[in-house]
Parts: sequence; structure tokens; C-alpha cells
Amino acid sequence: MLQRKRKSPEAAYVSELLKAKPLAETTDPFDCVAEELELVEENLTRSIRSAESTLTDIAAHLICGGGKRVRPMIACLAFKAFGGKKVEDIVDIATALELIHTATLLHDDIIDGAETRRGKESAYKKFGLKSTLVAGDFLFIKAFEFAGKFDDTVVQWTADACTRLTEGEILQGFFNRNTDVTLDDYLEIVKRKTASLFQAGAKIGIYQAGADSRLVEDMDRYGLNLGIAFQMIDDVLDVVGHKELLGKPTGIDLRDGNPSLPIILALNAQQEAVVNAFKSSRPEDAEISAALQAIAEGPAIEQARALSRSYAEKALGPVKKLPPSRYRNALKTLIQLIVERNF
Amino acid sequence: MLQRKRKSPEAAYVSELLKAKPLAETTDPFDCVAEELELVEENLTRSIRSAESTLTDIAAHLICGGGKRVRPMIACLAFKAFGGKKVEDIVDIATALELIHTATLLHDDIIDGAETRRGKESAYKKFGLKSTLVAGDFLFIKAFEFAGKFDDTVVQWTADACTRLTEGEILQGFFNRNTDVTLDDYLEIVKRKTASLFQAGAKIGIYQAGADSRLVEDMDRYGLNLGIAFQMIDDVLDVVGHKELLGKPTGIDLRDGNPSLPIILALNAQQEAVVNAFKSSRPEDAEISAALQAIAEGPAIEQARALSRSYAEKALGPVKKLPPSRYRNALKTLIQLIVERNF
Repeated sequence: MLQRKRKSPEAAYVSELLKAKPLAETTDPFDCVAEELELVEENLTRSIRSAESTLTDIAAHLICGGGKRVRPMIACLAFKAFGGKKVEDIVDIATALELIHTATLLHDDIIDGAETRRGKESAYKKFGLKSTLVAGDFLFIKAFEFAGKFDDTVVQWTADACTRLTEGEILQGFFNRNTDVTLDDYLEIVKRKTASLFQAGAKIGIYQAGADSRLVEDMDRYGLNLGIAFQMIDDVLDVVGHKELLGKPTGIDLRDGNPSLPIILALNAQQEAVVNAFKSSRPEDAEISAALQAIAEGPAIEQARALSRSYAEKALGPVKKLPPSRYRNALKTLIQLIVERNF
Repeated sequence: MLQRKRKSPEAAYVSELLKAKPLAETTDPFDCVAEELELVEENLTRSIRSAESTLTDIAAHLICGGGKRVRPMIACLAFKAFGGKKVEDIVDIATALELIHTATLLHDDIIDGAETRRGKESAYKKFGLKSTLVAGDFLFIKAFEFAGKFDDTVVQWTADACTRLTEGEILQGFFNRNTDVTLDDYLEIVKRKTASLFQAGAKIGIYQAGADSRLVEDMDRYGLNLGIAFQMIDDVLDVVGHKELLGKPTGIDLRDGNPSLPIILALNAQQEAVVNAFKSSRPEDAEISAALQAIAEGPAIEQARALSRSYAEKALGPVKKLPPSRYRNALKTLIQLIVERNF
């Protein structure tokens, strides 16, 4: 009961998932690193305080708005799974990863003109382009403040992940409303745009615990494949998810012309409603609905889920190489939770 | 002659100034740190290479587009002025400061909707909002990669400067087209938005050379006051400068509703044409011209130049405390060049 109480509402995501699918407490990924994640929350709250209240308001709007904290969780679990002891060796870099993720969300919402995020008005809609852009920069800088205190290797991995993130964003822009997009293009986008921070978290976590380069590479593969599986399910939920659970409407990818996995699979199956809606520069609501229905009724969703499971499977291999522990179990459980989630 | 040849066209700014006002070679700020600045140029060129050519193109558009490299120059001069020897102790952090500056220019142009920058189309106009936003993030990340390898103190100072930069941006937005803006507000904006990177450069430079905290504070004051003086002249040139020399049209501050120093002084003098143009959400060209003429004919420009000189004077004090050397002379010369420049 005490442990439940310690959970901040923001970090309760995994617990919510667990309600639907109870697990032995020892493998609840959140419980395993509750103390570390609590410190991450404190870091986040402290770091967004600024002399300019606008910056704090915008940052808080997103930071305190129900993020899943998956990236810090991965970093902390990987750290503990190799026997990492001192929380100060992992908490600040885990914080940096969440700050980077949040910064990119603020900038993404500008790029996509997003109306909603995490169940409420997007920062972009609420605070406007200018302040939201600067607030994104502010969070990048705070991330840098946390990450810059680690050794050169960690700094380099973090910077590399960020660079790949921006490259993924550009690549995604290139394939916007572009029906030539292939599954390989998709994987390239997702590896950079989503998986890069999962990879960084997993490998930095185990590196900070003192693991050798072989295990670091294993955890890199864990993060890569888990990140891909995660994004695939995100894409599926944008078609068949529930608005209330997601905190945002469905069909955003189609509306924005983002080449999501189900869209690409439906394009491959030459589903005309999807081709038309995806190509259209300003698709009507009726077009979107028809296309969503076509995707839902076609093979794309099942194919996408199967693909996600195959990447989840690839993430499982590296975990098996870790010494047995509740943290190893939690890393496994996290894969399952991510693939089976419905929000 | 050889030394002239070593100068990259981008870093030749100070030499251009010197043509108009020849100085003894020993005090030419560029010549004093030509070798270090050449390495900064190499760093910049190398760092903007990306797998995504769009990112490289946008970054190169600005990085190779005639920046003055004032911030790296200050860092390198302060370093050498206290006997700093190893170029690797200063070049990477000097590079980081220029990358941060460039990243903020990309984002500023989005915020201001700028049409031109450094004599050509702005990146925002040429490449669009989305790619320019991401390219700004990309440059922030590259800066972080360079800065993150230094010790905690340098990382913290760099991050603090960046934080103040974003706060200055927000504060400036708050006073956009706001006739309540005072000279104190202006100084607060300028200290954060412009002087912060000058300060960081100056104090990091001398710190990296091994100076004690007293001298670090002196150089902090040098950077602060030089930065303020620099921005004041920038503001003056936006009214009375020459379009061709500036690489951008004049009157931008009035058009954008940015509270520049001459505008504030003209508001204080209750110059009606300026009040009206500054308040107007979409001032007509004729309104802008009338207001610019009013400022030019009124007392504001001379007052602004006098204020700039007073801050230049304040920057001079700390330099005098340095041991005599050509670098100390160059730091002095830099003040003079900045205050007397006409582009």
C-alpha cells in the first residue's frame, strides 16, 4: 500500500496496465524502480522551474500531464538488472532522456499542428507557436544540463540518439502524404524517431552499472527492438484505439499524412479509401472515417500487431543473457505490457 | 599574406572592419586567434554533416553564410589572454557557443517570421518552418555534443547561458508591441538574450586557461557589458544601418514589434509616429518609414550610441586587470570595433 502511495499519478501508467493483467509484484516494472522514478519526478519538477513563468507553465503542461516515463524506466531497469546500486549514477541521465522526449513532443506538436496531447489541449494550441518552440529549447537545455555531467561515452550516446531523432523527423517529413513509402522506409523512420531514445536508455543503464561492451550491445538491441514494437502499437492504436484511453483522437496519422504502419500496410493492399485519404492534402472527416474503417476491416491491423510481436520477440533475446533477477523479469514484462497495451 | 589566406571568408568580419580603421597587426582580434578560429570553422563544417541532407543544407545555409564568429573569438582571446596553450582546451567549447547562437537564429527567424538573414533568404523562408525547427534542434544537439565533454563547471555555465537565452526570448515576446516597456526591461531582455553567450565565452575562455574565480568574474563582466553594447549597436543599425552592409533590411524591429533601444528611447520622447507604428499589429510600409525617419531625426540614435559607449567603457575595466599581452589588447580592440561598427 505504501508503495502504491509513493507513485506519482504521472508514473502510474504501467500500474494501470497491470490492473487489467495482474502480475506477481516482483515483476511489476514500475515497482522495481519506484524509488528511482520518484527521484526522476523530483528532478523533472525542479528542472522546469524558470524565472519566466511561461516556460515553467508550458513545460509543466506536458511534464505533469501523464507521460508514461517509459524511457527513464528502461534506463533504471537496465541499470538495476546489472547490479547498479547508487541511484545518482542513473537518475540524472534517466531524467535527461525524459526531458529530451518531452522537448521533441513540444516541437512535434508544432510541426504537426496538433490540437490535443495526453488528453488535453496541446501546448502549441494553448500557448502558441512562439512560446512552445522556446519551451522545447528550454527542455533540451535542461536535458543537456543533466546529461552533460556524465562521462564522454554517455554524452556521445545521448547526443547520437538526439541526432538520430532529428533525422527521423526529417525523414518522416519527406514521406508525408507520399504513397511511395515502403516498409523499409518506415523502419528507418521509427528506428531513428522512436527507438533511438529507448536504445540510449537501455544501453546507458547497463553501462552505468559497469557492464562490458557485449552486454551494452545486447541492451542496445533490446532498446532498438522494444522501441520499434512500441511505435508499431502506437500506430495501431491511432486506428483502433479509444480516444478516452489515448488522451487524443484517433486517425491523427491519416489526417497529418504521417506514414504509420497500418497506413503503409493498407497502401500495400491497395485499399483505395486509404490511398485517397493519405494523399489528400486536406482530407475531409468523411474521408478519414472511411479510410479508418477500411484499415480496421482489412488485414493491416493484424499484420501490424504480428510485426510488433516479432520485434518484441527480438527484444526478448538480449534480456535472456542478463543474470536472473526481478529486474530482468521486469524488462521482460515491460515488453509484454508494451505490445499488449491498449493506450 | 599567409595569415590573410588562412582566414575563412566567414570569419573575415573583423578584418573587414579593420580595412576601414587599420590597427597594428598585434591587436587585430582575428589575427591573434586565427589558428583557433580556423579549427572552429573545421569543427562547424564537420559537425553539420548529417545522414539527412536537409539538415546539413539548412545548417550550412546559416553556418557558411557569413557569421561574425564573435562568441568563439571572445572565448579564444580570453583563453590566450591568460596564457592558455592547448587549442583543444578551448576550440570545442568555442564551437559549441557558435552552434548555440546559430540554433537560436534559426528558431528566432521562425518566431519573427524573418524573410532575410545575413544577406540572403532566411532558412525559414527557404526551407519552411518544420525543417528549420528541426535543424535548430539539430544544432543545439551538436553544441551539446561539443560542450558535454568539458567539466561540470563549463557544462553548467553553458547550460545557464542557454537557459537565460530562452528566458530572454520569452521576455522579449512579452514586451512585443507593448508600449509599457522600459529601459530596465530592455536591459533585462538584452542581458539574457544577447549578453549571456558573450559572458559564457569570456568566462569559460579564461577558466579553461586556469584563471582563478576573481578573474573569471572579471571576464564575466567583460562579456556582459560587451554583449549589451553589441546589442545596442545592432539595434541602432536596424534604424540607421545600410541594408547591403547588414545583409538584411532596416526597420525589422519596428515591423516585428520588438522593443529595441532606439524604439524605447523614442517612445520615452513620445514620438507619436513611433508609438503608432510600434503598437500597430500590422504596420504599413509608410508608417514604418515615417517612424524610422522620426527616430533618425530625434535624439534616440545619439542617446543609444552614448549608452552603448557607456557599456563598452564598463567592459574595458575588467580587461585592464589582465596581464599585458597582445590578446589583452585584442580584447580591448574588440570592444572598440563592436561599438564603432556600421554592420
